[in-house]
Amino acid sequence: MREHSTRRSFRKRFGNPAWPLTLFPLPAFPEIRRGQNLAESILEAARRQRIEFEAGDIVVVAQKIISKAEGRIVSLRSVRPSARARALAKTLKNDPRFIEVVLRESRRIVRAGPRVLIVETRHGFVCANAGVDRSNVPGRDSVSLLPRRPDDSARRVAEALRKRTGKRLAVIISDTFGRPWRLGLINVAIGAAGLRVLLDLRGSRDRTGKRLHATILAVADELAAAAGLVMGKAEGVPVVIVRGYRFRPAREGAARIIRPAKEDLFR
Amino acid sequence: MREHSTRRSFRKRFGNPAWPLTLFPLPAFPEIRRGQNLAESILEAARRQRIEFEAGDIVVVAQKIISKAEGRIVSLRSVRPSARARALAKTLKNDPRFIEVVLRESRRIVRAGPRVLIVETRHGFVCANAGVDRSNVPGRDSVSLLPRRPDDSARRVAEALRKRTGKRLAVIISDTFGRPWRLGLINVAIGAAGLRVLLDLRGSRDRTGKRLHATILAVADELAAAAGLVMGKAEGVPVVIVRGYRFRPAREGAARIIRPAKEDLFR
Repeated sequence: MREHSTRRSFRKRFGNPAWPLTLFPLPAFPEIRRGQNLAESILEAARRQRIEFEAGDIVVVAQKIISKAEGRIVSLRSVRPSARARALAKTLKNDPRFIEVVLRESRRIVRAGPRVLIVETRHGFVCANAGVDRSNVPGRDSVSLLPRRPDDSARRVAEALRKRTGKRLAVIISDTFGRPWRLGLINVAIGAAGLRVLLDLRGSRDRTGKRLHATILAVADELAAAAGLVMGKAEGVPVVIVRGYRFRPAREGAARIIRPAKEDLFR
Repeated sequence: MREHSTRRSFRKRFGNPAWPLTLFPLPAFPEIRRGQNLAESILEAARRQRIEFEAGDIVVVAQKIISKAEGRIVSLRSVRPSARARALAKTLKNDPRFIEVVLRESRRIVRAGPRVLIVETRHGFVCANAGVDRSNVPGRDSVSLLPRRPDDSARRVAEALRKRTGKRLAVIISDTFGRPWRLGLINVAIGAAGLRVLLDLRGSRDRTGKRLHATILAVADELAAAAGLVMGKAEGVPVVIVRGYRFRPAREGAARIIRPAKEDLFR
C-alpha cells in the first residue's frame, strides 16, 4: 500500500515509467522430478529468499525444470536411430540416437552445420537441435526435450500460483536460443501466460509527435533475456521473479511470437 | 560498505548469484543536440533521480541519443537519390531519398521486403533499413543514422563517466532490431565498452557435473534487452542503469558479437 502511493507520487514527478525494474533470482532449487508440483517448489524457494509475491510479478521459469516436471526426459539407451538419423549423425559427427531424438521433435531441418542441426520444432520454433539438450539432466545418456505445449505449461503454473497467492501473476518459460548473424545464445520466451507477449506501439506517437511505424516490441523475449542474466546457465537458478514491469494482461501465449512463414523474409 | 558485507553473507547462505538485479530508468532527458556532452547529461539525469553511481554499474544508452550527440542526423531534403535508390524505392513503395540514405549506410542488401530493406550495415550488423530511422528525430524530413563506430562511442561515454565518478562502469549502446523467425523487435547491443560481451561457459560444468558445450551467452544483448523493457520506445527513457550484474571487465566491443560470415549457417 505504501509502495503504491510512493510509486504514484514518483510517477507524478517524473512521468512513466520511472520506477526500477527488479529481478529476484530463486536459487537453491531441489532437483525437479517428474510429476513435481512446480508452483509449490517456486513458492517454497521464494519463501526461502523471503520474497512475497506481489500482483503484477512475472515469474520466468527455465525450460529445463518444466521439462523435468513433465517427464520430458529421454534416455538415449532406449532410442533406436533410423537410417536417416544414422546418415545425418555420420555427417555431423554426433550420436545417431541424439540425432534421432532431434528429428522426432522436428518438422523440418533448416540447416545442418558442424555438430548441430538447426530445425523447426513441432511448435514452430527455429533453434539448434530442436531444444534437445544434455546439460543439467542427471544420467550420462539422458537428454531433455522441450515441453510439448509450453504455453499450456506456463498457464498451468500461472493458475496454480494465482490460486495459492491470490495475486495476478504472469509466467514465462525461457530457453537459450542461438540466432543468425549474431554470436552467442540469448534467452527467449518459448511459453507464456497472463501477459501480452508482443507490445504493439504502432499508431502511438514518439516524443516529437510522429507516429511510430513497425514498432512491435517482443516484450516476452526481452523479459526472458533479462531473466537470463540472473539465471546464468550452470548455476541452479531456474526461476526469476521480475518485479516492476507493467505488462498488459492478456490471454495469449508465446506461440504468437512465431513469425508466420509467409511473412518471414528469411525462409 | 554495508551493502557489500550484507551481500557477502547473503552469498554465503544462498550461493551465487542470489542478489537482485535492478534496472533504474533515467527519464526526463532534455532533447540531445549535436556536440552535447552525454556523460554530463547522464550524470545530471541520475542526480535528478537521486541515483549515485556504484562500481560495477552498467549504463545502457539508446542509440538515438548517441547519434544525435554525434550529429548523425540527415535531412532528407539534402539527399539526391541515385538511380538504384529510385528503382528500389518504387518496388518498396518508400521514399527514394530514404532508400538512398539506407544504401549509403549498407555493405549489401540481404533481403528486400514490403517497405523495408534488410541490409548488412557498414559495421556488419544485419538489420532493417541499416538502422536509419525517422522516430524521435525532430523535423519532419530528418532521419537518424547509427553511430559510425558504436564501440568507440561507448568507450568515450564510459571513460567520461569513470573520470567523473571515479567508479568502474561499463557502457552498452542499444538499438531495437528485428530478427528472422520471431515477430517483434528486441533491443540488442550495437556498442559496448568495459565488459565481456560474450560469456564463454564452455568447459565449465553444469549442476550434474557434465561439461557445458556450445554455451556462449550473449550477455551484452541480454543486458540491452533488459534495458529495453525499461526504455519503452516513445517514452523518453534513453538511459537505463543496470545494477547487480557481475560482468567480467574486458577491453572489447559489441563488434565481437557479429558472427563471422564463414561461421554463419544462415548466409
